[in-house]
Amino acid sequence: MLYSRLGRTDSKWLTLHDAGRLDIVQECVVASFFLSHGLRSDVTFHAVLSGPPQPPTHLQIDGTELFDVRTDAETWTAILKKVLNRKTHPGITTNKMSFEALLKAKAATGQIYVLEEHGTNIEETKIAANPVFVLGDHVGLPAKAEAFALRYGEKISLGKTPYLAASCITVLNYLLDRRSANPCS
Amino acid sequence: MLYSRLGRTDSKWLTLHDAGRLDIVQECVVASFFLSHGLRSDVTFHAVLSGPPQPPTHLQIDGTELFDVRTDAETWTAILKKVLNRKTHPGITTNKMSFEALLKAKAATGQIYVLEEHGTNIEETKIAANPVFVLGDHVGLPAKAEAFALRYGEKISLGKTPYLAASCITVLNYLLDRRSANPCS
Repeated sequence: MLYSRLGRTDSKWLTLHDAGRLDIVQECVVASFFLSHGLRSDVTFHAVLSGPPQPPTHLQIDGTELFDVRTDAETWTAILKKVLNRKTHPGITTNKMSFEALLKAKAATGQIYVLEEHGTNIEETKIAANPVFVLGDHVGLPAKAEAFALRYGEKISLGKTPYLAASCITVLNYLLDRRSANPCS
Repeated sequence: MLYSRLGRTDSKWLTLHDAGRLDIVQECVVASFFLSHGLRSDVTFHAVLSGPPQPPTHLQIDGTELFDVRTDAETWTAILKKVLNRKTHPGITTNKMSFEALLKAKAATGQIYVLEEHGTNIEETKIAANPVFVLGDHVGLPAKAEAFALRYGEKISLGKTPYLAASCITVLNYLLDRRSANPCS
């Protein structure tokens, strides 16, 4: 679950980068779903775009239905323009749900973890069965959103190195893969 | 060290994806160097581009000198076009060195590890002080190149999940960060 502080909520832009860093959303989507020659069907990705002109837009991508995608910028420029223009793409939906409403809904069915440098190190924690990881883009989670999320969940850390949001997702997927391969680790 | 089997060796292309998957080279560069608001200065990235019209082109990027870069596709489209057209960018050089010659040179100063699903699991291995990780793009390392690399190094694995090349680099950086934070782990 990505809070995109400046991500544009219309389709009137030229490049993902200049659309309030929708390139970060693309990187996070790729990190969430893409394997070599396959997609992770057991992942759901949410981004709450909070940029102009009409925030918020909640973008949801379901791994079970995601289809006809590649990792590159041209692909995601076309897809994001399409869905922000109220057209559809398999596995992708948009609506006007707020970060707070979404978080509350997710907390009802899974355990919330807020990625934060000063949280409990993930290697020292048992991750619950249906984890929901909350992270910010390059500007970070707004203090109010973080405080709200922490009412429902706990801070978790990947260590002292300040990773890109997408790198955090890649590492989380790796750690979860490793734990499902070695349930006792 | 990335073997790019089809990466174009000229600048006559429109998009990274259509340039023999130079988008994979971009993803690997981003995974190698980029932190949140910073670059890793202790990384050197090599790609051997083996696509038309005049393979090979060895692309080398030095973290100590890399400068004026962002993570997005437009940035790397411009940079890769520039350096493949024999112009320069801070920290990036190109030459005609072959994969084999480069590997031999790297083996003289570091320990070679070839990323391979069936290698020794990295979590069960001690990584040497100056590690060199060799990986292929979506087509994989050609059998001859892999056999050559294994004369100098050993197979190492991130587990049974077949990750994107860039995801492998992100995970390797994470594991090395973790080990330098906890030297006994």
